[in-house]
Amino acid sequence: MTPLPAAALAELTAVVGAANLLTDPGARAPYEADWTGRFTGSTPAVIRPADRDEVAAIIAVCRRHGIALVPQGGNTGLVGGGVPRAGELVVSLRRLDTIEPVDTVARQVTAGAGATIGAVQAAASAAGLRYAVDLAARDSATVGGTIATNAGGLNLLRYGGTREQLLGVDAVLGNGDRVTRLGGLLKDNTGYPIASLLCGSEGTLGIVTAARLRLVTRLEHGVVALIAFDGVADAVDAVSRWRSALDTLEAAELFLDAGLQLVCDAFALAPPFPTRWPAYVLVEAAAHDDPTPALAAAVAATPTAREVAVATDPTRRRALWRYREDHTLAIAPVGTPHKLDVTLPLSLLAAFADDIPNRIAAARPEARTWLFGHVGDGNLHVNVTGVAADDDTVDDIVLTRVAELGGSISAEHGIGTAKIRWLSRNRTADELHAMRALKQAWDPDGILNPHALLPPL
Amino acid sequence: MTPLPAAALAELTAVVGAANLLTDPGARAPYEADWTGRFTGSTPAVIRPADRDEVAAIIAVCRRHGIALVPQGGNTGLVGGGVPRAGELVVSLRRLDTIEPVDTVARQVTAGAGATIGAVQAAASAAGLRYAVDLAARDSATVGGTIATNAGGLNLLRYGGTREQLLGVDAVLGNGDRVTRLGGLLKDNTGYPIASLLCGSEGTLGIVTAARLRLVTRLEHGVVALIAFDGVADAVDAVSRWRSALDTLEAAELFLDAGLQLVCDAFALAPPFPTRWPAYVLVEAAAHDDPTPALAAAVAATPTAREVAVATDPTRRRALWRYREDHTLAIAPVGTPHKLDVTLPLSLLAAFADDIPNRIAAARPEARTWLFGHVGDGNLHVNVTGVAADDDTVDDIVLTRVAELGGSISAEHGIGTAKIRWLSRNRTADELHAMRALKQAWDPDGILNPHALLPPL
Repeated sequence: MTPLPAAALAELTAVVGAANLLTDPGARAPYEADWTGRFTGSTPAVIRPADRDEVAAIIAVCRRHGIALVPQGGNTGLVGGGVPRAGELVVSLRRLDTIEPVDTVARQVTAGAGATIGAVQAAASAAGLRYAVDLAARDSATVGGTIATNAGGLNLLRYGGTREQLLGVDAVLGNGDRVTRLGGLLKDNTGYPIASLLCGSEGTLGIVTAARLRLVTRLEHGVVALIAFDGVADAVDAVSRWRSALDTLEAAELFLDAGLQLVCDAFALAPPFPTRWPAYVLVEAAAHDDPTPALAAAVAATPTAREVAVATDPTRRRALWRYREDHTLAIAPVGTPHKLDVTLPLSLLAAFADDIPNRIAAARPEARTWLFGHVGDGNLHVNVTGVAADDDTVDDIVLTRVAELGGSISAEHGIGTAKIRWLSRNRTADELHAMRALKQAWDPDGILNPHALLPPL
Repeated sequence: MTPLPAAALAELTAVVGAANLLTDPGARAPYEADWTGRFTGSTPAVIRPADRDEVAAIIAVCRRHGIALVPQGGNTGLVGGGVPRAGELVVSLRRLDTIEPVDTVARQVTAGAGATIGAVQAAASAAGLRYAVDLAARDSATVGGTIATNAGGLNLLRYGGTREQLLGVDAVLGNGDRVTRLGGLLKDNTGYPIASLLCGSEGTLGIVTAARLRLVTRLEHGVVALIAFDGVADAVDAVSRWRSALDTLEAAELFLDAGLQLVCDAFALAPPFPTRWPAYVLVEAAAHDDPTPALAAAVAATPTAREVAVATDPTRRRALWRYREDHTLAIAPVGTPHKLDVTLPLSLLAAFADDIPNRIAAARPEARTWLFGHVGDGNLHVNVTGVAADDDTVDDIVLTRVAELGGSISAEHGIGTAKIRWLSRNRTADELHAMRALKQAWDPDGILNPHALLPPL
């Protein structure tokens, strides 16, 4: 790690004040590793701007001195995209956490990049509305970080991901250009969609300092159903039918028998049904009027549905959710998993799910494969235990197969630094060239998160 | 207009065959003016590629010879963005009209750039689904053209615009890069969102040759209500409440008393209510279960709603829609209108609507202003009659005021060539610089629709 030039240090100090330029190793440490501890790095300093002008000034100093930087939000990323892997300056956006009053007429809110998703949800809720993006890390993950990764979350099926909530941004690009578009216009065809392009760019094109976010209606009535199937193909097919038969679906989650047994054993839960079945789908529906009768009718009209459990009261709904949500906790004690977050075309998802454990076992007979995920979105979490942490063979098998089937090697986590070596499985040389041209356009000095997302040439 | 160099003409003929390179003036004519006849130009030739490879070859020839081109779809644009205003080669995409079988599991379809929106809707409908983008020009407007303009349409309130339906594209960029992403993945965070960036770029960055489109559920039950208010402020406020109270709203349209009287007079329609009111809102709701009781309850809970008419049968629903939809036809005989398609922040829409007729009258006392539009989206169509067609004073007053209030000078039509002179009212020098950098990145030779969208430097 190269220390910052003294002149740069002085200029950065002038921008934010000494108290907000952390150079002490103890103070820097929490910013140098991600929350899981898997991705570590080192930084000469952590700078904590207070507002957009300070962000712009930091970018100007870094351009002048050729200093690489990594923007960082809540540091809850899973692919090493927010960690200073190669001695970059860390620009922490957490102080930009202002949430403006909710506009209840437009059903929108402007939030600083450092505001947590939980804080945005709370502000929306206090105004009688709801922020549609929700994820387990809600109390740490920030608006800026979720924009940088285009976070998906639990309710993408109904409301879309972060890009679909994003009505505009305030941002500073790597070339110094300032963008201000926080008016929250639903229809605005006046040039290229700058906010959409920044969303998912993982801090490589610009730094978002605030965002205008769409809020949605808060629905009073909810219902959760757990349905057993003879296999993944039937499960995928049923979810597709229900999506057409119901206009109230909020989530559709898949898991398999082995995972369910593991969860029941780990937490001493009674199984949902007396009989074991190969595949299970958990669906949640919500509406102003009770969505239960319509959901029950749709399930009843599905001959492949083998058994059904339905819950409308919060306690029982939560109990059904545990079979799905506790997978992560139940798998951990089996062994540190390789976690592969992938999307398959829905029409090929079942073929992939039925076949991938065999492909993994052929290469690593000692491996165990756990499959679960957001089946409504085609998003599977492939967890593999029993393989050494530094053995990439399984990752390679899974991601290569996903790419062969036209799937995505990164459904919702992004590329970061962890998945760069596989990006070319998913993207053609032309597409990488087109992306590099955008990078060059907005970050001509290559100072913004230079080791993330795009492979070195 | 400069003729094409003989060598280029020979190379282009080799790509598509003589039958698909139209140089005869009579054959070119339909491509040289938009459908309203307002925007005219001239082209040395119209080239009609059959597939993506031919599009790529055409771009290669044009780059080699420095030939500017204008991509053209159904030629239904309203801002001169698809017309050869400065002697450009016209590349008509209409032959790329293949629609692949609907994927009913994923609820998606792949359509060629030249397929009409009506054809996509028909294919979706035959598969029991629905394409959410709908607009009056559906039988001429093409998939490629609606992507180039990010067309909004009638149901944006519920389903979003074209960008929200676009899961991926097959395209050739101006630098020759080919992009292929038609897998229809709902979650795919593997780099910059190329399809989103092309959407709304008005043919200035690349040529889309096919698109993967999201389809939505076809809902059986519909209801239309017309509600009278004391003014626009009450109307906007009520629509905002209904959006929170209902999860079934498909459209929310505003018009005023003068417009209603004009429509009733022009078409000898009985007025909807015995009393006249300053403002009216037409709402449509649709759901699997009858949405009428919930809509009726929401309206009943709105004390500012002065009178209400409700229709559930198709004939009566259509009759209520006529009060809104026939505005365009009723205004035309009053005088050729200046049509200004703008978006206001919802919280300022009423202030704008109440005030803009006075501002127009102060400058042009002979003018009459007609206001109507998609109030749920903040989108107003400001029509002004009684002013000479070449008098831009009124346009300038309206668009300047819109920009002052943080609105958009182009809600859903785009900038094209017609609105370029006002773009700087809406976009800062930094934002234009950032857009030009993208243009330079993907169209380094400046051959793609060079006179559209971005002002000359």
